[in-house]
Amino acid sequence: MKTQVAIIGAGPAGLFLGHLLKAEGIDCVVIERQTPDHVLSRIRAGVLEQVTVGLMERLGLDARLKAEGLVEGGFNLADGERLIRIDCQGLTGKTVVVYGQTEITRDLMEAAPSRGLEVIYGVGDVAVHDIESDAPYVTWTKDGSAGRIDARFIIGCDGFHGPSRKAIPASAAREFERVYPFGWLGILADVPPCHDELIYANHERGFALASMRSHTRSRYYIDVPLTEKVEDWSDDRLWDELAIRLGPDAAANMTRGPALEKSIAPLRSYVFEPMRHGSLLLCGDAAHIVPPTGAKGLNLAASDVHYACEALAGWFKRNDADAVAGYSERALARVWKSERFSWSLTKLMHRFPEDGPFERKMQVAELEYIASSVAAQAAIAENYVGLPV
Amino acid sequence: MKTQVAIIGAGPAGLFLGHLLKAEGIDCVVIERQTPDHVLSRIRAGVLEQVTVGLMERLGLDARLKAEGLVEGGFNLADGERLIRIDCQGLTGKTVVVYGQTEITRDLMEAAPSRGLEVIYGVGDVAVHDIESDAPYVTWTKDGSAGRIDARFIIGCDGFHGPSRKAIPASAAREFERVYPFGWLGILADVPPCHDELIYANHERGFALASMRSHTRSRYYIDVPLTEKVEDWSDDRLWDELAIRLGPDAAANMTRGPALEKSIAPLRSYVFEPMRHGSLLLCGDAAHIVPPTGAKGLNLAASDVHYACEALAGWFKRNDADAVAGYSERALARVWKSERFSWSLTKLMHRFPEDGPFERKMQVAELEYIASSVAAQAAIAENYVGLPV
Repeated sequence: MKTQVAIIGAGPAGLFLGHLLKAEGIDCVVIERQTPDHVLSRIRAGVLEQVTVGLMERLGLDARLKAEGLVEGGFNLADGERLIRIDCQGLTGKTVVVYGQTEITRDLMEAAPSRGLEVIYGVGDVAVHDIESDAPYVTWTKDGSAGRIDARFIIGCDGFHGPSRKAIPASAAREFERVYPFGWLGILADVPPCHDELIYANHERGFALASMRSHTRSRYYIDVPLTEKVEDWSDDRLWDELAIRLGPDAAANMTRGPALEKSIAPLRSYVFEPMRHGSLLLCGDAAHIVPPTGAKGLNLAASDVHYACEALAGWFKRNDADAVAGYSERALARVWKSERFSWSLTKLMHRFPEDGPFERKMQVAELEYIASSVAAQAAIAENYVGLPV
Repeated sequence: MKTQVAIIGAGPAGLFLGHLLKAEGIDCVVIERQTPDHVLSRIRAGVLEQVTVGLMERLGLDARLKAEGLVEGGFNLADGERLIRIDCQGLTGKTVVVYGQTEITRDLMEAAPSRGLEVIYGVGDVAVHDIESDAPYVTWTKDGSAGRIDARFIIGCDGFHGPSRKAIPASAAREFERVYPFGWLGILADVPPCHDELIYANHERGFALASMRSHTRSRYYIDVPLTEKVEDWSDDRLWDELAIRLGPDAAANMTRGPALEKSIAPLRSYVFEPMRHGSLLLCGDAAHIVPPTGAKGLNLAASDVHYACEALAGWFKRNDADAVAGYSERALARVWKSERFSWSLTKLMHRFPEDGPFERKMQVAELEYIASSVAAQAAIAENYVGLPV
């Protein structure tokens, strides 16, 4: 099989890019290790910046997002005694939209056939070849037989554990990483949210986040030591802990319900540089991970895809090789700013085992300062709604 | 001897408070361990916030400050390739004034006799007594004889090493501290500054600060390991290092000259809570230390003194005991915000031995973000010119 762009991974990054390239008249094929149902079963973030909403609009696939998404004008930092509201709309003129990553994936997946976007699911043993040449190719196996696509470019949208990044020689790359000393224990439940905006809480017992997917589906988190096991957290125990950490006002409005999903995810900051090696470009989690604080993961994948699409359109439609050559630097500039925001919000809202009383006072002082300063709130707001692409 | 308020320490905090109380018609006496010449020989900070300038104006002692002080509309962060200018005046409407702490002290010292402010220099063995009663007193020795002042309140303006804070029982207090793994090696020289505004530089070889006291007197710093000895730093070696760390543009404009003063000072963040115990109130370095990054030390002493004067005026003139009772909380609210700013600017502009490549990238990303964001610049600017009192 031969195409212009081979995309590895049919999560939101790969599907976004496939649709965008099709819309530009660029041939592409997406391959995906999992089944469609498995892809849709992954529970992920659900706060969309304008860049992500903008991609859906550009593709004309925003009808359900507009109908079902919750437009949020702000969010809240809880410091134990009060909510510090960050009025994103008032401070930046921009909003975010609560709409599950799963829903984005579903919309993109369902639109693929009508847009002529070919997605091959259920492939195994995916490998990329000759990425330092101008004739790279991808191989795989499916149902016992071998498959291969030859392309001018391969785009790795295959997540942190996918084969794309690993194909780049270590001598040509540099990794940056921070692992955090806790994970997030999350619960998804079909109950109305306790508040109409997200609440990030820094309580003496630890971090908590009250979030939602819709008016009837809530998503809550607490941080736990990485040694904890999800089996040790009954629904009741987790609801009790959330009620304490989120504080009495949120607790009074919190509706409990059985967990649709409950899991512990580690927190990690990770960046791989560069994001292009020869004919291979990386997008999204394949190149970088943010801790979930601030909900930047999906939105960074969206801005990567935006830059990648511009680079590929430059190559195929305007004979402009510089666009591809500049992809990594352009994408990384925004990646590092989002990494910084996610890291700093994580540091502000969590208790770290290595922190002493002075560092704790610095958290308190920063929250006090944020509560008192329009400039500080504006800086947080512009990061939360998303820095310019 | 009997007075209403006994002030220990005739640095800027003690002299400010003495003058302010006199202006309010409240009796006070200041005692000081050192000679006037020794007090004036201490080289300290020289960037005044509006709160500090305002105290001089209020006392009608601002003539020389207005004539000789350099009004600065902004300052600069250097990240190796460029200067990121923080336009304080444009962003906040406020400026700072470069005017040495030594000059403030001299102005206050010289005005004392004409204002009837009694300052007793050269006292030894200072001790405070009965601070939990409403009849505290201070004792000392001078020229072989014993001295004593009885007062309603004692104000400790006697710096980090003075006896006041140590008189508060540990059981009634809490200390917060962070010691930094480097010191600042400073040089004072009668040469024109390399730039008309301050430059804080984060260079791969370490921190540097280009500062000034006047159009003809410069103050420069680099950070060095605490194991360094000032004897190992000839003037030439220090100028060479400054030229590298401040970058080619600053180096090209840097005039070298012999050191009038050269020393290494450790960096420390320290807060003592509460700032009042019974009839003893603490002001300035007696209660808290900031690292010099951001030049908050003297300005925090000024806001403490402002609050202390209001509290004492409430007590003696309006029969309002609440003002004294609330002094510590009021002063500490501003102290912690300045501690936070000094700590965060220190962390942004220095290389820490414990930081890895990821943390270094966070510094780069923060500087990039600041360079690109008006909101981020506004937040830094409002802290630099001083948060509201």
